[in-house]
Amino acid sequence: MRNPVITLLTDFGTRDHYVGSMKGTILKINPRANLIDITHHVSPHDVREGAFVLANAYSAFPRGTIHLSVVDPGVGGPRKPILIVTTSYFFVGPDNGIFTIALKKEKIIKAVVLTNPKYFLSHRSHTFHGRDIFAPVAAYLSLGVKPEVFGPVLNSWIEFDFEKPRIREGRLLGEIFHIDAFGNLVGSIDEEQLLDFTKDHSFEIKIGKRTIRGLKKGYWEGKRSEPLALIGSGGFLEISVREGNAKKRLKVKKGDRIVVSMINDQ
Amino acid sequence: MRNPVITLLTDFGTRDHYVGSMKGTILKINPRANLIDITHHVSPHDVREGAFVLANAYSAFPRGTIHLSVVDPGVGGPRKPILIVTTSYFFVGPDNGIFTIALKKEKIIKAVVLTNPKYFLSHRSHTFHGRDIFAPVAAYLSLGVKPEVFGPVLNSWIEFDFEKPRIREGRLLGEIFHIDAFGNLVGSIDEEQLLDFTKDHSFEIKIGKRTIRGLKKGYWEGKRSEPLALIGSGGFLEISVREGNAKKRLKVKKGDRIVVSMINDQ
Amino acid sequence: MRNPVITLLTDFGTRDHYVGSMKGTILKINPRANLIDITHHVSPHDVREGAFVLANAYSAFPRGTIHLSVVDPGVGGPRKPILIVTTSYFFVGPDNGIFTIALKKEKIIKAVVLTNPKYFLSHRSHTFHGRDIFAPVAAYLSLGVKPEVFGPVLNSWIEFDFEKPRIREGRLLGEIFHIDAFGNLVGSIDEEQLLDFTKDHSFEIKIGKRTIRGLKKGYWEGKRSEPLALIGSGGFLEISVREGNAKKRLKVKKGDRIVVSMINDQ
Repeated sequence: MRNPVITLLTDFGTRDHYVGSMKGTILKINPRANLIDITHHVSPHDVREGAFVLANAYSAFPRGTIHLSVVDPGVGGPRKPILIVTTSYFFVGPDNGIFTIALKKEKIIKAVVLTNPKYFLSHRSHTFHGRDIFAPVAAYLSLGVKPEVFGPVLNSWIEFDFEKPRIREGRLLGEIFHIDAFGNLVGSIDEEQLLDFTKDHSFEIKIGKRTIRGLKKGYWEGKRSEPLALIGSGGFLEISVREGNAKKRLKVKKGDRIVVSMINDQ
Repeated sequence: MRNPVITLLTDFGTRDHYVGSMKGTILKINPRANLIDITHHVSPHDVREGAFVLANAYSAFPRGTIHLSVVDPGVGGPRKPILIVTTSYFFVGPDNGIFTIALKKEKIIKAVVLTNPKYFLSHRSHTFHGRDIFAPVAAYLSLGVKPEVFGPVLNSWIEFDFEKPRIREGRLLGEIFHIDAFGNLVGSIDEEQLLDFTKDHSFEIKIGKRTIRGLKKGYWEGKRSEPLALIGSGGFLEISVREGNAKKRLKVKKGDRIVVSMINDQ
Repeated sequence: MRNPVITLLTDFGTRDHYVGSMKGTILKINPRANLIDITHHVSPHDVREGAFVLANAYSAFPRGTIHLSVVDPGVGGPRKPILIVTTSYFFVGPDNGIFTIALKKEKIIKAVVLTNPKYFLSHRSHTFHGRDIFAPVAAYLSLGVKPEVFGPVLNSWIEFDFEKPRIREGRLLGEIFHIDAFGNLVGSIDEEQLLDFTKDHSFEIKIGKRTIRGLKKGYWEGKRSEPLALIGSGGFLEISVREGNAKKRLKVKKGDRIVVSMINDQ
């Protein structure tokens, strides 16, 4: 592997030494590693949010990319450090569900528990496995070390269940899963689920106190301060305000309900 | 081109998957691209602010650098995706004026509209051309693909007009164009305009409720909580407070008036 | 040196053109430089905070890494621009104490004042030596230019004194030195000082209005909303709340007192 890409996704923020320490550790082991930040601004300890951002970004990267994802509220406790190998990527991080959403779309080849101390830093803290375990493992992987060398096979891993959209009394119920930097509200309902439910019929979407009819193709079709619905770039139902902030306008928050209902057109 | 530099400037923030998705897309096409962030914290949809930051940073980069700048409130609408080639650089982004200030100092060789879908992602969203159009075009450019291959010649492009400083009733009028992270107030008046107006005579600068006499060379010449004026590192008139925050101290905001007047020295 | 690493640590934030301008300047001189951010979010002008973050991150990097650290409230004034060479690293930045903590653990070989304008940008501002002096010097260093070429030998440099923990009336007194993005309170007392003081006896830690008994090994051993003390990944006494925010919970701030007392076990 030449100049292999290692992505980093954490909740460490960018004020402290944490990210720099991880990057230095990797470069000490493999100076040719190409380090690319996905984000370090996952809300502290929010594994689900990390899982969501990772799921939206990981497949844009070249085959063989190593995705190093450390949102790790259980660091130092009994949660396992793991490596999951799919046909296209490597995922390194804690066994707490952070890979749940990304793995849904991947074909898994192998999974191992990281136990071989030969590939850890020699002085290991109880609070910073990002630097002491995960960064060196990712670095050695990028040098071509085989997955099975890092530890024994892992047969099952944690998948958090996130509320799947469900149909109740003839309505499709989802929730706001993520709010992006523009205030766009990303729902838990994906394009396929929405189309399965609505077929080609008219529908409306209730969110907060607003009702929105049908879908637009892009922000650009919306009026300047009116909420609109569309399928976002990640393939999920999204509520937006053209050149505005839907979160502020609709006064909603993560976890709030999204309800899709058919419209009786007669 | 070996290890060509591609800079990224957006209003995407760093909490979401957007920047990671763009970088992955580029590296999938050209694994040798050297990706350098200018900023991802342009105020959402603020094309002028993006134009200003780009104009201050772009010329520091090596010849041949590809500047990928995506502040794109009109994404998915009729605004054109464009490439502008100058004697030193490539500029890729939406045709909305974002290159206006940078291009003033550049000699333009060629401009094209990006229409050739061969160089886009095959599945194109209506909301994220940063990933689906601009990132792949920048990546192919960095591989040496010729500009004319991306689409037909573009004969004119949008330049927003920003208020140029003007002389009225014997006073030079400008505005606060940008406020940096230190609270320094960057004015729309550049060094040349100021010297043309003041010649070698004494002058004073009115901003908010304060009047400042003459220019200092550096922050260091100021008193610790007194506002001072100088020519900043970008070549513009700047109001600062030594080791302090001029924005908070003067209680001003972007767009506020700056007035330069001669002092009658008799 | 092939693909030498240059780290960047500043208080420039990431909204403005400053960091991009520094990186472009370096790449224009050495296109092979591997630029790694430690942080750009040091609190404005806070040299001590910069020194602390640098001290925690620098030694993770490969031998030969050039650490470019620019928290520089005295820019343009009489403070000297300097280069300090140790057995493992190069440190480039202003002579204001920013390297104080990192250098405690390093063996210094040589120090020089940066005076040779041949290695500066030709047009030098009075307000942005990060771009005009420090970035080009780091770039030339990364090309293998010898330290002595940049200017005359420097015999002493500024070390700020930070309050060392001290024993008074049988108690060990320290302070909160840093608060990280999780709200963890990093103290000025390091592991060795704590062990020297407590030997193997029981002790308690007073901080704000709380008293904490003894040390945990990791966050994981704590109860979910109870403050706990441990030795953090940087080797300092740290007060944390498992999956919570100790800063908010204890209502404390940087500089607040930490008191360690022995417990009479009889």
